[in-house]
Amino acid sequence: MLEKLKQQVYEANMQLTELGLVNFTWGNVSGIDRQEKLFVIKPSGVAYKDLCPDDLVVVDLKGNIVEGKLRPSSDTPTHIVLYNHFPEIKGIAHTHSPWAVSFAAAGKSIPELNTTHADTFNGDIPITRELVKQEIQSNYEENTGKVIVETLKQRKLLSLEMKGILVNRHGPFTWGIDAKEAVYNAKVLEIVAEMDYHTMTLSPNIRILDQDIQNKHYLRKHGENAYYGQVH
Amino acid sequence: MLEKLKQQVYEANMQLTELGLVNFTWGNVSGIDRQEKLFVIKPSGVAYKDLCPDDLVVVDLKGNIVEGKLRPSSDTPTHIVLYNHFPEIKGIAHTHSPWAVSFAAAGKSIPELNTTHADTFNGDIPITRELVKQEIQSNYEENTGKVIVETLKQRKLLSLEMKGILVNRHGPFTWGIDAKEAVYNAKVLEIVAEMDYHTMTLSPNIRILDQDIQNKHYLRKHGENAYYGQVH
Amino acid sequence: MLEKLKQQVYEANMQLTELGLVNFTWGNVSGIDRQEKLFVIKPSGVAYKDLCPDDLVVVDLKGNIVEGKLRPSSDTPTHIVLYNHFPEIKGIAHTHSPWAVSFAAAGKSIPELNTTHADTFNGDIPITRELVKQEIQSNYEENTGKVIVETLKQRKLLSLEMKGILVNRHGPFTWGIDAKEAVYNAKVLEIVAEMDYHTMTLSPNIRILDQDIQNKHYLRKHGENAYYGQVH
Amino acid sequence: MLEKLKQQVYEANMQLTELGLVNFTWGNVSGIDRQEKLFVIKPSGVAYKDLCPDDLVVVDLKGNIVEGKLRPSSDTPTHIVLYNHFPEIKGIAHTHSPWAVSFAAAGKSIPELNTTHADTFNGDIPITRELVKQEIQSNYEENTGKVIVETLKQRKLLSLEMKGILVNRHGPFTWGIDAKEAVYNAKVLEIVAEMDYHTMTLSPNIRILDQDIQNKHYLRKHGENAYYGQVH
Repeated sequence: MLEKLKQQVYEANMQLTELGLVNFTWGNVSGIDRQEKLFVIKPSGVAYKDLCPDDLVVVDLKGNIVEGKLRPSSDTPTHIVLYNHFPEIKGIAHTHSPWAVSFAAAGKSIPELNTTHADTFNGDIPITRELVKQEIQSNYEENTGKVIVETLKQRKLLSLEMKGILVNRHGPFTWGIDAKEAVYNAKVLEIVAEMDYHTMTLSPNIRILDQDIQNKHYLRKHGENAYYGQVH
Repeated sequence: MLEKLKQQVYEANMQLTELGLVNFTWGNVSGIDRQEKLFVIKPSGVAYKDLCPDDLVVVDLKGNIVEGKLRPSSDTPTHIVLYNHFPEIKGIAHTHSPWAVSFAAAGKSIPELNTTHADTFNGDIPITRELVKQEIQSNYEENTGKVIVETLKQRKLLSLEMKGILVNRHGPFTWGIDAKEAVYNAKVLEIVAEMDYHTMTLSPNIRILDQDIQNKHYLRKHGENAYYGQVH
Repeated sequence: MLEKLKQQVYEANMQLTELGLVNFTWGNVSGIDRQEKLFVIKPSGVAYKDLCPDDLVVVDLKGNIVEGKLRPSSDTPTHIVLYNHFPEIKGIAHTHSPWAVSFAAAGKSIPELNTTHADTFNGDIPITRELVKQEIQSNYEENTGKVIVETLKQRKLLSLEMKGILVNRHGPFTWGIDAKEAVYNAKVLEIVAEMDYHTMTLSPNIRILDQDIQNKHYLRKHGENAYYGQVH
Repeated sequence: MLEKLKQQVYEANMQLTELGLVNFTWGNVSGIDRQEKLFVIKPSGVAYKDLCPDDLVVVDLKGNIVEGKLRPSSDTPTHIVLYNHFPEIKGIAHTHSPWAVSFAAAGKSIPELNTTHADTFNGDIPITRELVKQEIQSNYEENTGKVIVETLKQRKLLSLEMKGILVNRHGPFTWGIDAKEAVYNAKVLEIVAEMDYHTMTLSPNIRILDQDIQNKHYLRKHGENAYYGQVH
């Protein structure tokens, strides 16, 4: 069932470790088949070195396990909320990568300070508010998804223009048109967090990148007049 | 004698190097057989690449060497104090991992600032007071164990809820239900120390994680209603 | 066509990844044949692990593609400006290495604070001004080259004495007598940026290296009385 | 000639790269045969991957090349001064390791803030004064050795108790009873510089380690009552 998608999601999960984004079992990637309305996600608490494609769990958009012998990631309800609210995304990644968590724990968004950031993220990478007591005690993972949706909505951000966010005190969620792109965005987010930390120390009052250069770099890689890379 | 335990403790010692927690011979792991009242520990000053399971030393809880051709770790008396005062722990690790030592040398505990911390440690990771002259000059390693016990006691911390500590000016000791978990906790402690350093620089006045989110993350991985990972 | 040069430029591109200077497809190296007035450059957006010498694109100094099935790097117009204005250089490298980008995003040059810097770069590594709206919107990559030329000229720097620069908000360009040396200089620039960050934090008011020691280190490796290395 | 020593010095040089202490050709290690009054040193500017034991150069204590087809390290006169003034040392290492250079460029010694430091270095690791114009322009490398000797003398430090130093604005020299120990000390110096940087940021006014704990750690590894490691 969904063998090709399972293979893709498996490879995307394994890439989390190759890119140095996870320790132990921390982190998970999923990918969705929009026609079947089913997504494939890493099982909870399984070490990456022991993971194989058949361990992945197939889940529907109400959270029912459709196939799989293992429990899905404990963050599965967060993925469901994101897939339901953003029909254009097809892959989601979550990590505890250290620079991203450092910003999340500090309650700070990742400001757009350089062109590496602009090449991938169209604006500052936002941070959610902290969840309140009631949101934590019941349906915590679902509420994590809801606060991500709320944050993008409040800031008028489209899910395909801002493909990542920091959950306050927790860490990053990223997404994209497939599981692979979600992992790519998780790595870029980590890289720009590291760069920003050092830039902010060197120049504490540095202002955000001007809109012209933001657009130039974002649009030369994205959108209809993009000219970076090869024509496919 | 205790061949299975020796193999486990050997593997846990080797994992210290695989996880990037030690340089040269710095660091040691032990594991105990509570029925036999004997523990197995790394020999002193032996390079990890030269270590084999038979090199491990078997010691009783009074410090007598029961088996082994090599001297046990110079930190053996610290392990003995911890095993004697905390009958529920079965493995101990000690490293000089750099972020942990940086906090220890600064005289600072590792504050609970993010959910990665809360997933493993139930509260701030404490730091002991500095030892006084007399405690240093006689039975230094034993007194290191005693000041760890004193610190947990004063802060009303249970050894299975706070599985690590910083010894002031020195470095981390961690423990758990076996040698493997002690090493796992040594790595998590190092990771959260690194994250905290950067968070504290970004937001010098950041407050500790709220109690609700502390509990949520700690209890979804620990305790009777834990739902992270697989049912075994 | 230009098979030997292609092989050299290919190896220099691959060295970018071996030296830890690039993530994904970010970065490019070129090398020129001054007699043929043709240069060889990495194709745009191709992953390094998939790159082979035949993928490289041959371009003339007006920007015409002379050979190659793939599009050249989107930064090709920057390379053209530099090759046209500095006839003495024969290789150019561009990366998004993190320490260099951190300085570039902070709007800061890399000051000459230690002898490691002086061994390779004769003075502070300069930073360009930011481009203005019009320079960004039309011929952005060409204008990036022009602002590099403008900066060297204003500071009276010779291209073979200052073989690197930071483009404001963007990142480093380095060059040299061939593609290999350009990559070498990209690595040294990254190393000294990292060192300087920590030095500037330790001693915020540290002054630039005295001229005597600047000259000593630069000239013992460069110039007619150089005595570092072997006689060839 | 001196084949055994050559092999040892070769291995010590190669260990510089394995321990992550050098980039490119930066750094050199030597070892001396005190009976023959000859030492063996890395040739200048040779890449470590191309180095073989026969490339090492045999030099006498006046600087004459006794055997070898290649030029010795440009830092050879520094090694000669140290061997002549400290007859008890038998190995010397020099690197441009980044944390050590960061302190050297900041004009700061490496303070003794933790027990990892105390295990190897008996006190703060000192930094020399900067050389003056005349010392730079003539016999620079010899004067680098002289300012090291001057600094140890002024601070009343014995070469076998303080086995390393920072040359101001330049970087570390370390030594020991053989080439291998010199490299070991180069690594420890780098590790404690990194730890100290972070400790000094966390606690800017942290005081030096108390004398009692300094002595305890230094003497449990060194001196006649040492009890760390195995009896040989």
